[in-house]
Amino acid sequence: MLPALPDHALDALLADDVPLGDLTTHALGIAERPARMTFTARDPLVVALSEEAARLLGRAGAQVELFAPSGTEVGPGGPILAAHGPAGALHRGWKVAQTLVEIASGIATRTRAIVAAARAVAPDVAVACTRKAVPGAKALSIKAILAGGAVPHRLGLSETILVFDQHRRFLADLAPAEIVARLRRSVPEKTVVVEVDAVDEGIAWARAGADVIQAEKFSPEAIAALVAALKEAAPATIVAAAGGIGPDNAAAYAAAGARVLVTSAPYTAKPRDVQVRIAPA
Amino acid sequence: MLPALPDHALDALLADDVPLGDLTTHALGIAERPARMTFTARDPLVVALSEEAARLLGRAGAQVELFAPSGTEVGPGGPILAAHGPAGALHRGWKVAQTLVEIASGIATRTRAIVAAARAVAPDVAVACTRKAVPGAKALSIKAILAGGAVPHRLGLSETILVFDQHRRFLADLAPAEIVARLRRSVPEKTVVVEVDAVDEGIAWARAGADVIQAEKFSPEAIAALVAALKEAAPATIVAAAGGIGPDNAAAYAAAGARVLVTSAPYTAKPRDVQVRIAPA
Amino acid sequence: MLPALPDHALDALLADDVPLGDLTTHALGIAERPARMTFTARDPLVVALSEEAARLLGRAGAQVELFAPSGTEVGPGGPILAAHGPAGALHRGWKVAQTLVEIASGIATRTRAIVAAARAVAPDVAVACTRKAVPGAKALSIKAILAGGAVPHRLGLSETILVFDQHRRFLADLAPAEIVARLRRSVPEKTVVVEVDAVDEGIAWARAGADVIQAEKFSPEAIAALVAALKEAAPATIVAAAGGIGPDNAAAYAAAGARVLVTSAPYTAKPRDVQVRIAPA
Amino acid sequence: MLPALPDHALDALLADDVPLGDLTTHALGIAERPARMTFTARDPLVVALSEEAARLLGRAGAQVELFAPSGTEVGPGGPILAAHGPAGALHRGWKVAQTLVEIASGIATRTRAIVAAARAVAPDVAVACTRKAVPGAKALSIKAILAGGAVPHRLGLSETILVFDQHRRFLADLAPAEIVARLRRSVPEKTVVVEVDAVDEGIAWARAGADVIQAEKFSPEAIAALVAALKEAAPATIVAAAGGIGPDNAAAYAAAGARVLVTSAPYTAKPRDVQVRIAPA
Amino acid sequence: MLPALPDHALDALLADDVPLGDLTTHALGIAERPARMTFTARDPLVVALSEEAARLLGRAGAQVELFAPSGTEVGPGGPILAAHGPAGALHRGWKVAQTLVEIASGIATRTRAIVAAARAVAPDVAVACTRKAVPGAKALSIKAILAGGAVPHRLGLSETILVFDQHRRFLADLAPAEIVARLRRSVPEKTVVVEVDAVDEGIAWARAGADVIQAEKFSPEAIAALVAALKEAAPATIVAAAGGIGPDNAAAYAAAGARVLVTSAPYTAKPRDVQVRIAPA
Amino acid sequence: MLPALPDHALDALLADDVPLGDLTTHALGIAERPARMTFTARDPLVVALSEEAARLLGRAGAQVELFAPSGTEVGPGGPILAAHGPAGALHRGWKVAQTLVEIASGIATRTRAIVAAARAVAPDVAVACTRKAVPGAKALSIKAILAGGAVPHRLGLSETILVFDQHRRFLADLAPAEIVARLRRSVPEKTVVVEVDAVDEGIAWARAGADVIQAEKFSPEAIAALVAALKEAAPATIVAAAGGIGPDNAAAYAAAGARVLVTSAPYTAKPRDVQVRIAPA
Repeated sequence: MLPALPDHALDALLADDVPLGDLTTHALGIAERPARMTFTARDPLVVALSEEAARLLGRAGAQVELFAPSGTEVGPGGPILAAHGPAGALHRGWKVAQTLVEIASGIATRTRAIVAAARAVAPDVAVACTRKAVPGAKALSIKAILAGGAVPHRLGLSETILVFDQHRRFLADLAPAEIVARLRRSVPEKTVVVEVDAVDEGIAWARAGADVIQAEKFSPEAIAALVAALKEAAPATIVAAAGGIGPDNAAAYAAAGARVLVTSAPYTAKPRDVQVRIAPA
Repeated sequence: MLPALPDHALDALLADDVPLGDLTTHALGIAERPARMTFTARDPLVVALSEEAARLLGRAGAQVELFAPSGTEVGPGGPILAAHGPAGALHRGWKVAQTLVEIASGIATRTRAIVAAARAVAPDVAVACTRKAVPGAKALSIKAILAGGAVPHRLGLSETILVFDQHRRFLADLAPAEIVARLRRSVPEKTVVVEVDAVDEGIAWARAGADVIQAEKFSPEAIAALVAALKEAAPATIVAAAGGIGPDNAAAYAAAGARVLVTSAPYTAKPRDVQVRIAPA
Repeated sequence: MLPALPDHALDALLADDVPLGDLTTHALGIAERPARMTFTARDPLVVALSEEAARLLGRAGAQVELFAPSGTEVGPGGPILAAHGPAGALHRGWKVAQTLVEIASGIATRTRAIVAAARAVAPDVAVACTRKAVPGAKALSIKAILAGGAVPHRLGLSETILVFDQHRRFLADLAPAEIVARLRRSVPEKTVVVEVDAVDEGIAWARAGADVIQAEKFSPEAIAALVAALKEAAPATIVAAAGGIGPDNAAAYAAAGARVLVTSAPYTAKPRDVQVRIAPA
Repeated sequence: MLPALPDHALDALLADDVPLGDLTTHALGIAERPARMTFTARDPLVVALSEEAARLLGRAGAQVELFAPSGTEVGPGGPILAAHGPAGALHRGWKVAQTLVEIASGIATRTRAIVAAARAVAPDVAVACTRKAVPGAKALSIKAILAGGAVPHRLGLSETILVFDQHRRFLADLAPAEIVARLRRSVPEKTVVVEVDAVDEGIAWARAGADVIQAEKFSPEAIAALVAALKEAAPATIVAAAGGIGPDNAAAYAAAGARVLVTSAPYTAKPRDVQVRIAPA
Repeated sequence: MLPALPDHALDALLADDVPLGDLTTHALGIAERPARMTFTARDPLVVALSEEAARLLGRAGAQVELFAPSGTEVGPGGPILAAHGPAGALHRGWKVAQTLVEIASGIATRTRAIVAAARAVAPDVAVACTRKAVPGAKALSIKAILAGGAVPHRLGLSETILVFDQHRRFLADLAPAEIVARLRRSVPEKTVVVEVDAVDEGIAWARAGADVIQAEKFSPEAIAALVAALKEAAPATIVAAAGGIGPDNAAAYAAAGARVLVTSAPYTAKPRDVQVRIAPA
Repeated sequence: MLPALPDHALDALLADDVPLGDLTTHALGIAERPARMTFTARDPLVVALSEEAARLLGRAGAQVELFAPSGTEVGPGGPILAAHGPAGALHRGWKVAQTLVEIASGIATRTRAIVAAARAVAPDVAVACTRKAVPGAKALSIKAILAGGAVPHRLGLSETILVFDQHRRFLADLAPAEIVARLRRSVPEKTVVVEVDAVDEGIAWARAGADVIQAEKFSPEAIAALVAALKEAAPATIVAAAGGIGPDNAAAYAAAGARVLVTSAPYTAKPRDVQVRIAPA
């Protein structure tokens, strides 16, 4: 059961696009005509946000049947949903619902490509998506990456610990172990994640007690070197690879021993085409 | 003077990412340390939403100086903005502001590439971006495409007339000229745009009095054929090419005689990298 | 199918009026008593927002039957809606729903009077209402004028071109034709509307290529003179009459040849009385 | 110090009218030109909401000087405010600010006419405006009637007691005195107001202990009769006249001895014209 | 029929707690399993907000049956509500719904204790709760005190008159009777409440015409003295005791003759424990 | 640098209490009089939300000087803030600001009592407050507990893993180690917290690999027994004590070896009295 966008978010999308009615349908005088509409996939895709599209069409005045819930793989021509109601209701919700599914399915499809590539070589690897979703589209994006098989890396700054170099510059007088100890005192329950730029930096922080080393823009080879070094130095430490990871290189990073692949790549995936047909009922 | 995102939109982005403070900075005990931060371009980009990034950092508690307003082209290493204030304030706003600029500059940069390619061969061509922005990111996206030199095609359904095949199926008993006449009676001031799938359909609707023929998924050759045919049949009619247009083929469509290029391509452009440095002041 | 106010707008109206329950009904101890309520017209009216009134009463806890949808003409004593439910629910929604219908029906009734007067002499004339609705009541007002048979003139500044003298003062060095050309380059798809104060000004801008001449505060005679002059000078140009138009002079402006009558008069129309009866069920 | 509309209400008005920039100013290329703007009264008016207009223009990007605060009487040509800034900022806020002042000043002006007429014959009479403001414009309307010299009658259902016939039908087995006693037990601190349709009904309820008799649609003569009767029967009782009261008959009702005049008439007053000039600075 | 929190308030509580799904349930892979949940009282309590808890669980995706509406007294083990649906839906709403009922029932239970103690000695005494609810929890708190048998003292500053010493310091040159007269002129319909710190001050203001004397931090003995003095001096005046009143001393204040007990004590009452069981269905 | 409540939250609190102005100040005619106001502690307290109180008073129209930021201990009579401005502005914000500080300081003061008691015997113990804040007051409550020296336990369900018995009932066929493994695969970076009701249950889950054992309603003795047992069985495991912990028993739990004390006790702490004086300036 994936998260659901709340009603007011759907109403806001509708209001953004159709603040005061569909002028074309009104001026043509066809708004009250009974009609039906179908959404089908043009290309293969992992559907996402189809529940929201269905609810949005419902709020626009249509009756909707959902065929493909978020997470479903659909082939070309495969049905996603069908709606019927007054032509004015279908036209009111059409493009908003279509865009929602096209954008979100783009994200889910690219997510699943990364997950599949990585798990083919390392079945236990996790793909975690960053905070860098398109501003305003966070809920949509997180639901879509969950539909694609990834998990969120962090949802924000308030519940997780991730120590950047941009933090450490203020603590130049403290050894890594002292920094980790300070965090343990304050928030003993939280995982301590430290972002590093080089293998030896990763080893130092793992030895200092970090739970996760987030290796930023490492090559797969550098990841492998870090993993190997930690096997002895700090075997419980988790290595997360971040920066520039996508469908093409996910397998290489997974094979290199990264336990987590951290990526923003899905968030601006090309939308997947959804074909919409509307006709008199 | 481009549109500005309102305060509450910026507060919402901050609240989404930092609902209850930055736990890492708090637990490290560095939040009150004086600090400075810079945003610079890693790769060439057309900046967008830098004003909003600056205002957002201000709302997070920083003093900000803006170097590159939306629409500016910045080369590698070029400065975008600088901020100073307590480390806690800079960390609070850092990633939200960075993501805002990276995503929006991606949109603006791809927009400008399309505009530049098209205008190189047809200086008067207009690039108009569709309604299919990422849901929740409409204001950001429209400001970014304006910064890139495009204009919005339609902002929604309530103020413009665009007749799709999905409308015409309800009016099968009326000739195109009758449909146009019906629209003129109802909304005499509005441009009548008709989407068509084939050259002869375009000619028919132009003869029927449509102001704009929106040619959906035409090849550049088909556009040229339509333009040529209309030169005689309906010389005042504007041809807009839509569907699959991007930086690579914009020149071809412009050369073919389309007066407007309608595109959604910028909305999911790859983000442009912005480098952020934070250090004690 | 007219636009619908979203749920949260109705909840906001209820919350404004009944933030924390109906104290009188509570203190009298009658809130749980089964009750019925009817809304009927006192005077003849064109109903508007009755759908919203019905939904609002539903959200307040009543079962509602709607007799007269927006746009219906109802005579004295004619039924608009009926509701039943606990007395507390009916009292909670009573006045908010009543005021909504009374205000909106006032707008719709005056709109229809203007439309009817104008179309009696010129069946194809359009009545377009301005942006000057009561602040906060835009959606209500636009739905009501649509119910009355008018269309919105502009919904705002972001999708339409209307050149005022307040713009032209910044372009004193450009001829009208140059200004129109500049607009065509930028937004080829948009209708160019120019507001003018005098007949010769209207002729000049029509010759310069404006699509619509909006004649501000012209007498019907001046409109007729402008229309006559344009018949030769620029026969495709549309003349819109604006300023001071209401039910009494709409026919004169229509007869003078204006194709569009632009008016704000309906927005502050006197409310139409709706009689509300509540009794034990 | 009158109430102030909150920032987000002003931002909402701007966003409604200018969701994504002023297209005309943008397309004309004049948005960055330095400009100045003045608001002056065309006809005599009691200004209202000028503070909000000034703040709104400030939020749109202008510098504003306010000359006439809410409540000020201004004669023809009298200055209300002046602003300067980029032409794009002034055009962005122009009509929204103008409409706000025009509508609110219409309300304030009519309110003051009623107050002045009534107080000319009865200096202590109070004018109280009902809950029936235009839906969505409650805050604006209440501030405007306060600026005009009236007070709100009730702001909603949750803090005051007003017993309608629509309540009493559920208590047919109780004598008026029993109903008043029930209210006293529950909410001893609240004024008990009872709406009545006839003189004898008013006398009965005053004898039963109501604090205020709200006489609905009484003629001035009937008010005088009620007041005379109560002088003996229940001298502490306040008589409020309600229904159909406006500038023309307010003096008659005040002279008849009503202590409070309850009216909705100001809420749909004709807007007062404000002249707006914009020019290069 | 108590007031109801609006949908968006319930959605906001859910979104605050579960912005993007329940990670534990998702990671365990049990979200789609059919499940049932019960809420029962651990200790005796007066239920409040159970309607909202039920609606909230419904919005989270469950089917809910409500056993104990707000205001019901429930003994240990007594059922409040039951829900069934996917485990993910029940877990999503569980704690938010539980906390809502626990906090609100704490408020209602303490309110009823005060009301019961006071009415045992003075059946007509009213308990009125102040404006000092926990910020952000006003609607919840007012509904809970109504469920407990109290009424709101004031809902805010805009509809009632309460004269504090903090007001009177600005009117040092006016006698009490002049101040009361000023209020009567302005708002004849409103009850005039005056807060006083000493018996003689109370007598003075009652003689000056105040309707209610709000005695701040008086002992029961001082209340009795004031009541006795007013019996002669101003028999219609109501005495309200305020400050430090709770379940332990409410009877003493009621016995002393206060007609209203004004208290903030319920708002931070200890939550009442609700036991929640979830199991496979 | 603690988190800050956003502007719109402060505006909402003001609007809740003063939707349309302060009627008493208006009716008394003193709103424009220059005035000053001070907030001082009546009893010793740990201040919280004083920044928000200051900003709120600023938004109400006052000039404010803040003496005691959140987290400061203030003795009886100690100054918190001072404001000056028109009497109407001070009265408008007075009680809302006062209640905000009184409630939040109650929470912070009780939090600090718990933290101080625990750290007196175990300097590294952490106090973590639960999700069970008063609904609607989450941001206020979290800021206040941070000001008191605690940290949030969980901010919600979407970023942390906490396995309740209510989850495990759906996984009866899996051994604890299998459940932990499932979580590791899905979210390798997250701390696995398991709530248990008995010592042997705690030992079993620690052996199965849980990072944190949350011991629900254990006595201090039971905590000590669990800690002792884990020293050998799973020395890296953290023991968190939860349920019924407050200022009185925090030391006992800390002495027993709990590394984290999980509590909801501060959220309904009695407000701390703040004395407010307002006088002509």
